[in-house]
Amino acid sequence: MKIRVGVNGFGTIGKRAAWAVSKQDDMEVVGVTKTRPSFEARNAIKEGFPLFAACAEDVTEFDKAGIKTSGTLDDLISKCDIVIDTTPGGVGADYKPKYEKAGVKAIFQGGEDHSIAGISFNAIANYHESWGASFVRVVSCNTTGLCRTLYPLDKAIGIQRVIASLVRRGADPGDKKGSMLNSIEPALKLPTHHGPDVQTIMPWLKIQTMAVVTPTTLMHVHCIAVDLKREAKEDEVLGVLSKSPRVRLISGKDGVRSTGQIMELARDMGNLRGDMMDICVWKDGIKVTGNQMFYYQAIHQESDVVPENVDCIRAMCKLEQDPLKSIAKTDKAIGLAK
Amino acid sequence: MKIRVGVNGFGTIGKRAAWAVSKQDDMEVVGVTKTRPSFEARNAIKEGFPLFAACAEDVTEFDKAGIKTSGTLDDLISKCDIVIDTTPGGVGADYKPKYEKAGVKAIFQGGEDHSIAGISFNAIANYHESWGASFVRVVSCNTTGLCRTLYPLDKAIGIQRVIASLVRRGADPGDKKGSMLNSIEPALKLPTHHGPDVQTIMPWLKIQTMAVVTPTTLMHVHCIAVDLKREAKEDEVLGVLSKSPRVRLISGKDGVRSTGQIMELARDMGNLRGDMMDICVWKDGIKVTGNQMFYYQAIHQESDVVPENVDCIRAMCKLEQDPLKSIAKTDKAIGLAK
Amino acid sequence: MKIRVGVNGFGTIGKRAAWAVSKQDDMEVVGVTKTRPSFEARNAIKEGFPLFAACAEDVTEFDKAGIKTSGTLDDLISKCDIVIDTTPGGVGADYKPKYEKAGVKAIFQGGEDHSIAGISFNAIANYHESWGASFVRVVSCNTTGLCRTLYPLDKAIGIQRVIASLVRRGADPGDKKGSMLNSIEPALKLPTHHGPDVQTIMPWLKIQTMAVVTPTTLMHVHCIAVDLKREAKEDEVLGVLSKSPRVRLISGKDGVRSTGQIMELARDMGNLRGDMMDICVWKDGIKVTGNQMFYYQAIHQESDVVPENVDCIRAMCKLEQDPLKSIAKTDKAIGLAK
Amino acid sequence: MKIRVGVNGFGTIGKRAAWAVSKQDDMEVVGVTKTRPSFEARNAIKEGFPLFAACAEDVTEFDKAGIKTSGTLDDLISKCDIVIDTTPGGVGADYKPKYEKAGVKAIFQGGEDHSIAGISFNAIANYHESWGASFVRVVSCNTTGLCRTLYPLDKAIGIQRVIASLVRRGADPGDKKGSMLNSIEPALKLPTHHGPDVQTIMPWLKIQTMAVVTPTTLMHVHCIAVDLKREAKEDEVLGVLSKSPRVRLISGKDGVRSTGQIMELARDMGNLRGDMMDICVWKDGIKVTGNQMFYYQAIHQESDVVPENVDCIRAMCKLEQDPLKSIAKTDKAIGLAK
Repeated sequence: MKIRVGVNGFGTIGKRAAWAVSKQDDMEVVGVTKTRPSFEARNAIKEGFPLFAACAEDVTEFDKAGIKTSGTLDDLISKCDIVIDTTPGGVGADYKPKYEKAGVKAIFQGGEDHSIAGISFNAIANYHESWGASFVRVVSCNTTGLCRTLYPLDKAIGIQRVIASLVRRGADPGDKKGSMLNSIEPALKLPTHHGPDVQTIMPWLKIQTMAVVTPTTLMHVHCIAVDLKREAKEDEVLGVLSKSPRVRLISGKDGVRSTGQIMELARDMGNLRGDMMDICVWKDGIKVTGNQMFYYQAIHQESDVVPENVDCIRAMCKLEQDPLKSIAKTDKAIGLAK
Repeated sequence: MKIRVGVNGFGTIGKRAAWAVSKQDDMEVVGVTKTRPSFEARNAIKEGFPLFAACAEDVTEFDKAGIKTSGTLDDLISKCDIVIDTTPGGVGADYKPKYEKAGVKAIFQGGEDHSIAGISFNAIANYHESWGASFVRVVSCNTTGLCRTLYPLDKAIGIQRVIASLVRRGADPGDKKGSMLNSIEPALKLPTHHGPDVQTIMPWLKIQTMAVVTPTTLMHVHCIAVDLKREAKEDEVLGVLSKSPRVRLISGKDGVRSTGQIMELARDMGNLRGDMMDICVWKDGIKVTGNQMFYYQAIHQESDVVPENVDCIRAMCKLEQDPLKSIAKTDKAIGLAK
Repeated sequence: MKIRVGVNGFGTIGKRAAWAVSKQDDMEVVGVTKTRPSFEARNAIKEGFPLFAACAEDVTEFDKAGIKTSGTLDDLISKCDIVIDTTPGGVGADYKPKYEKAGVKAIFQGGEDHSIAGISFNAIANYHESWGASFVRVVSCNTTGLCRTLYPLDKAIGIQRVIASLVRRGADPGDKKGSMLNSIEPALKLPTHHGPDVQTIMPWLKIQTMAVVTPTTLMHVHCIAVDLKREAKEDEVLGVLSKSPRVRLISGKDGVRSTGQIMELARDMGNLRGDMMDICVWKDGIKVTGNQMFYYQAIHQESDVVPENVDCIRAMCKLEQDPLKSIAKTDKAIGLAK
Repeated sequence: MKIRVGVNGFGTIGKRAAWAVSKQDDMEVVGVTKTRPSFEARNAIKEGFPLFAACAEDVTEFDKAGIKTSGTLDDLISKCDIVIDTTPGGVGADYKPKYEKAGVKAIFQGGEDHSIAGISFNAIANYHESWGASFVRVVSCNTTGLCRTLYPLDKAIGIQRVIASLVRRGADPGDKKGSMLNSIEPALKLPTHHGPDVQTIMPWLKIQTMAVVTPTTLMHVHCIAVDLKREAKEDEVLGVLSKSPRVRLISGKDGVRSTGQIMELARDMGNLRGDMMDICVWKDGIKVTGNQMFYYQAIHQESDVVPENVDCIRAMCKLEQDPLKSIAKTDKAIGLAK
């Protein structure tokens, strides 16, 4: 029998997570929620996902807009084994008591604090910590991106210290509100939360982060300086990254020099929504001198955590013990396999 | 036997046109050309399109990059019944003698002048003018967009005069060079070429255009003021547009208020590359007072001309006499049918 | 004795209006208000403008930040003959009863409705309507820009009808929040308020407007199509505009092709804050055919209304009967004279 | 007698350098050059700077545009003691033989390689190296910014190692061409040239840099991580920076959180062209833990090197032996004094 999954919040992450779950053979989507009758709500139904109103009061609005709902969030919860909570950052905490009371498991996203669940998740780095857990947080897009490359490097070569500057996009492409037009704005509170957030997954890692936001919509770019535990060569590092799951080596020489060109590559690859779920590391932007390594990576904030949510379900529902097998299964089903 | 189509220039339009042709049952892609071994060249091969070097001299570069070519443009031409020339604006004119000498038909794009072929094409407005022709120009994205809504309005209600202001995007999403950052720049030479360009399709139409360029990458937006030949109501106009091929009515009330949100809708619809080949007219942005009509439409500059190229092949190769049947066939094959 | 002017709201318009008033010899700034201890508040004091807290409750915050206030808005009002209300759009209406009760005159800005005062003001077009009035609204930057060129054209040649498309900037350069990143968004409610707003100044003018917003910060650009009452030539039109106050003819041939380049010109001219209080019309972007005229103009949304506020004070306080003399006096004092 | 200064290239840097020189009492501008009759050329004359055509062939174009020239570059050189070469990056090298032949000193800008002069200049860090020299390069805006804060920190506390990520603006506000719209693009060649460039001034400093470019026009932002030679406190660091010339401490708490808001502050300060010649360091964006320090700074690429050019003249022409006295004199004359 398939694990029954509900998705609370059919927005940027929710709609992608629902799609990814629906492609797996060991889980199914029993419904998704939406607060307003937008085009995304209409689309949920077109994609075959039963639509539930987030609150009972919202039902009238859906009715007025001619969109059929299958009940409310409470109804959805009653049909689920597990909920993927993709409500806006900080809102998940309000829903937790509801899930608890109903006795369903729940996955929160990186907009919530680690403390909401006490366990944070990244498939390659700490899959087993979530084994059988009731509540888990899948870390944010940026933290996921950092774990995907730093964990394999740490395992293969050893990392002494990381200094990363995150150059963030200002909004998602369809967002109504974004960062200041024509401005660069630093995150003044230092160190930024990204370092400690990585440490919820890799507590032993010494990492410090700074961040600025820029008026773009496509991807985050990380400038990462790593002190390795020993000397290495670029070839060795490239070897490690080329074998790491959900990491893609790209090349300026192929005409992929910017986030806009990565997104063009993703569109040409035929990816649904033009998404790029892999972390993209520029091959020709890696430099290793002695034990010092420098590299750039680009993070598709809308999609990189999507396969992590699928693996997290497998860990929490004890569907698969081997993280690499879960990753391979997830990725094959959604066309992400290397 | 299928019509054999070559695509000269596998860039923004070329790669989409190749895909659209490959989906039809009465034509096939026999090859595409590229000048440099970029990721787009690699992708052509992944998609199963034989790759030809634009010039003999380019072959070495492809070899060095480990990309297999099937010959040069001359080889490709010798295999074709018709070439879709999607080389950069103004370059098509240089290739025309080659096509002529080889005795193959050719379709040029809107970056070329009308005089390159003497016939310009829009499927709904003047399909028959291209019947059996050797050389035809498919008009630009903006002109295509204007014809798609103005022709049906003119036919159903009658148009006395059009004044349109085109708010252009500054570059395509993957373009290396674009318009000035953080600036709005008017097209000072008035009237802009768009009005006369529409008149290559609808010579009887009185239309004057102005244009500005803005630092965005997603779509053009047209502000259109129409003096109709008689009074009308919004309902009548909506009725006309809702029945017009390749015109989509969208609504701010559904959360689709901007070009970013239209592109998000296109991604959610599962369209390849997140394209929106329909011209999008805002339902709640139409105003009719007496015989005066005002409306906004958004044009996806990367893709709206793609189905026009397919229909143009059918007209030039005498595959289908009825434009509406060709349009329906094209659209069904690429998932664009209403 | 000088007219005593208070400025309620030392933001984008307020700080410029205070400066412009301070440069005149028949009026003086007795104080300005601010709600929060920002750098703009510090700057008010550096510029020598007594600073008043908008509310009594705000005083503590200023104290904490070490910024000395001279009292509250009520104290300021008691020292004034007239208040320039430059509070955010819609907020002016809340303050009106306060001004009324204190018996001071007040000027509102274009963010308020015409009904707040019953009289709207543009120096060149309807100066005398505000003669001796207690409450007047200076129209918005866009409406001011339209009046500055349309009124002289109407007076000299006669206008039958205007269709204007406004391409708006998304935010001021220092604004925290702006329009959607990388998107063009039309103003769906048609006709937009700009046409009726011009008619509060020129009620006889037939004008219809559309508008889109773009992610830029520098200036609005208007695409204007005018049906004149008779045939004209470009030279005649250029002659009219070259003599119109606060209209500047610019030229793409001089390297001024975009809003960014106009702003660069303004900086090079040594204008305070790099402002451009003139409406800029592209000489080489004017086309006249028979009785049809097309032109582009750029509007510096932060500053074009500033001299209008000064003239409005003169009309309301009966300081000068001749609008052209007031305009000349204002402009000379702030370095704007032709 | 005043030192006679010519400015070759009246563009972004040149026009500002000419202005700054003209404000000093020990030097004067004898002329500036321009290649084309743009608005900047007209402005040179309005500002009282004799205008020279870059080449003899350009004179006709100026004549046609009605702009009076005082001769050609050769004529200008014959009147100078020293030339500030502000021609585009890489072009200065072509002019060097001309200067050499004429026996005039010359200052090049950061777009040239260090080797053009063998000496690079920053006023606070290595003033004396240029004493009496014939050819000197003033380093680029970014390198100047790094030296202005790192040199004082190194002198006061000692620096062990620096890792800096530079988030660059994509173009100057009036530039015709800029970086990719809506994209972030890393500088793939690592380490970027900025580190070695700082070492032309401070050869002992261990510094590594990464860089990305973003589609903005206002300022660069640096994310800087410093390993100090000993433990320190934020107060000590703030004390050092607050006393450093041409460094300004700004604060998010005052509403100055982004580059757009810094530029707004500069405009409010009444600075010519709204420039900010100081390097701006966010007070509330400094973090010191043990011997590790993190901070952000913003660099106004159009203007920060301007006072350095003035000081460089003083060093090369032996006008003032004490760098701090030259800095103070320069800054007082242009309104930059702390």
